[in-house]
Amino acid sequence: MQMKLMIVGLGLIGGSMAMALKNYPGLECTAITRNPVTRAEALRLGIIRSAWAVPEDAPIESQDILMLCLPPDACVDFIRTHAMRMRPGSILTDVCGVKRPLKEAIDALPGHPFHYLGGHPMAGKERGSFANATPDLYRGAHYILVPDADVPQEAVHEMQQLIQFIGCADTIITTPEEHDARIGYTSQLMHVMALALCDQHLLFESYGFEGGSFRGATRVAALDPDLWCELFWANRETLASLIDELRGNLEVYSTLLRSGDRAALLEQLRVSSDRKKEFDRIRGLEHLHSPLYK
Amino acid sequence: MQMKLMIVGLGLIGGSMAMALKNYPGLECTAITRNPVTRAEALRLGIIRSAWAVPEDAPIESQDILMLCLPPDACVDFIRTHAMRMRPGSILTDVCGVKRPLKEAIDALPGHPFHYLGGHPMAGKERGSFANATPDLYRGAHYILVPDADVPQEAVHEMQQLIQFIGCADTIITTPEEHDARIGYTSQLMHVMALALCDQHLLFESYGFEGGSFRGATRVAALDPDLWCELFWANRETLASLIDELRGNLEVYSTLLRSGDRAALLEQLRVSSDRKKEFDRIRGLEHLHSPLYK
Repeated sequence: MQMKLMIVGLGLIGGSMAMALKNYPGLECTAITRNPVTRAEALRLGIIRSAWAVPEDAPIESQDILMLCLPPDACVDFIRTHAMRMRPGSILTDVCGVKRPLKEAIDALPGHPFHYLGGHPMAGKERGSFANATPDLYRGAHYILVPDADVPQEAVHEMQQLIQFIGCADTIITTPEEHDARIGYTSQLMHVMALALCDQHLLFESYGFEGGSFRGATRVAALDPDLWCELFWANRETLASLIDELRGNLEVYSTLLRSGDRAALLEQLRVSSDRKKEFDRIRGLEHLHSPLYK
Repeated sequence: MQMKLMIVGLGLIGGSMAMALKNYPGLECTAITRNPVTRAEALRLGIIRSAWAVPEDAPIESQDILMLCLPPDACVDFIRTHAMRMRPGSILTDVCGVKRPLKEAIDALPGHPFHYLGGHPMAGKERGSFANATPDLYRGAHYILVPDADVPQEAVHEMQQLIQFIGCADTIITTPEEHDARIGYTSQLMHVMALALCDQHLLFESYGFEGGSFRGATRVAALDPDLWCELFWANRETLASLIDELRGNLEVYSTLLRSGDRAALLEQLRVSSDRKKEFDRIRGLEHLHSPLYK
C-alpha cells in the first residue's frame, strides 16, 4: 500500500521526521522547503523523493498526509492559504508546541476537505535547522495527538503507526485546550524558568561552580527567541498564570528561610521532594535518576 | 612515598571517592563508617585497607589527610570533637556544599595542628548511600577548594593530584564566602526552583506532556530533605535573596505576557537567551547542547 506524505518545512523537526521515516514501508515522502541546500541534501540522503521550494508548485492535492513542520504563525498562514487544496479525506497534521491557534485557523475554513489531526512530538534541541536533524531525535519521546472530532479511527491509527516507527515511547491523545494548558507547564514554564535563572546577576561569575543541577535547569535557556516568542504569545494567559503560581511557590521557600523555623523548612522539603519521588515512581521514570549528576 | 588518607563517612560521596582513588600510587586509604555492611563491602572491594565504626577507635593521629564525607552538621560535630587529635602538618578536608560553618568551627579551635583545605566536588546523585557509589562519579566535574591562609602550596598541590586522579575537569580555588555565595546560585537555587516547579498544581496531571526541559529542570527535586535542609539553612540569607531576585526576574515575563507588547517580549527573550549562549560559548560548554532533548 502506498502512502503519500508531504512534509512542509525541513528544519530540525521536519528533517528529523523525514530521516526517521526513511524506511517506512510503502511511504512516498516528499517535502516543501525554501532552502536549496536542504533540498539537495535531503534528496541526496534519499529521505525524500521530491522537493519543492514553494507550496504553489507542490502537488498538495495528491497527498494522503500533509505534515506542517513550521512555527505556529507560519502554520496558520499555510492553513489559510493552501490547506483547502488538500484532497477529501486526507490528513492534515503539524508538530507545533501550541494547538489552539491552529485549531482556530482550521475551524475558520468551513467545509474543509481534510481531517485535522494535530501533533506535538516532545522532542527537540536548542539548535534548529536541517543541519542538526538526526533520525533518532524522537526516540523515547512522547508524541501528543490532538484529533478533531471528525477524524476517523483509521487515520489516528495510521498516525500512531508512523509515531511508533520513528521510535516514540507512546502516543498521548488530548484536546487543544488540555494540550496548551499542560504544555504551558511542562515545557513553556520550564523555558521561562531557565531564562529567569540566567537573568540572575551571578551568571557570568559562576563558572567553575556549576554542576548538573545548573546545567539541567538552564540548558534550554539557549533558545530560539522568535520561535519561543510565538509559542509563549499564543498561550500567554495560561503561561502568565503558571508564572504567578511559581512565584508564589518560591516565596514559600524564601519566607521559610527567613522565618527562623528550620523544622518548618524541613517539612516543606519533605513534602515537595516526596511529590517528585511519587511522580517518578508512578511514571516509572526512576531509571532517569541513577546516571545523572547533581 | 606513602600517603595515609582516612575517609570519614562512606556514603555516596565518600564511597565514590574511595572507589575512584583505588589505584592511586602509594595511597593507604582507610575509613570510618558506622554501617557494618558498608565496612565489609568496602574491604571486600579492596578500596580501603581498614575500617572503624567510630572515630574513637580510629588512628586519626597518624593520618596525612582526613577527608570528612559527612553532611555539614556532622562535619562540624566531628571537627569539634576529634580534629584536635590530628598530627601537626596534616590536612583536614571535607566535601560539604557549604563552607562557612566548617570554617567557623575550625577557627574556634585555636592552635589547631592541621591545615584546613575545604573541598566541594560538584558531583552527586539524588540517591545517596554507598550502594549508589561509583568510581566515575567525579568524572568531568569541577572540584572547588577552599584553603585556609596557612595551607602550604605543597598541600594544595597534593589535593590537586588526587582531584585530577579521580577524573575531575579542574580545580577552582576560592574562599568560604565566595563559595557559599556562588553555590547558593549554581546549586541551591536550582534545587529550590526544582522543588517549586514540582509544587505546581499540574504536576500529577502532566504525565505524557513532559519532555527534556521538564526532566532537566525537575530532576533534582527528588532530593534528600535532611541534607538539603542543612545546606539551605547554613546559607539561608544568601539563598533567600537569590530567590527574591528570581521572583523578580519571573515577574518580568508575566508582566510582558500580560502587556500586549509582543515586541518587548521578543526583545527580552533575545537578551536572556543571548546571555545563556554567551555563557555556553565562553565556557566551552557548547558540546552539552547537541545530544540533549528539549
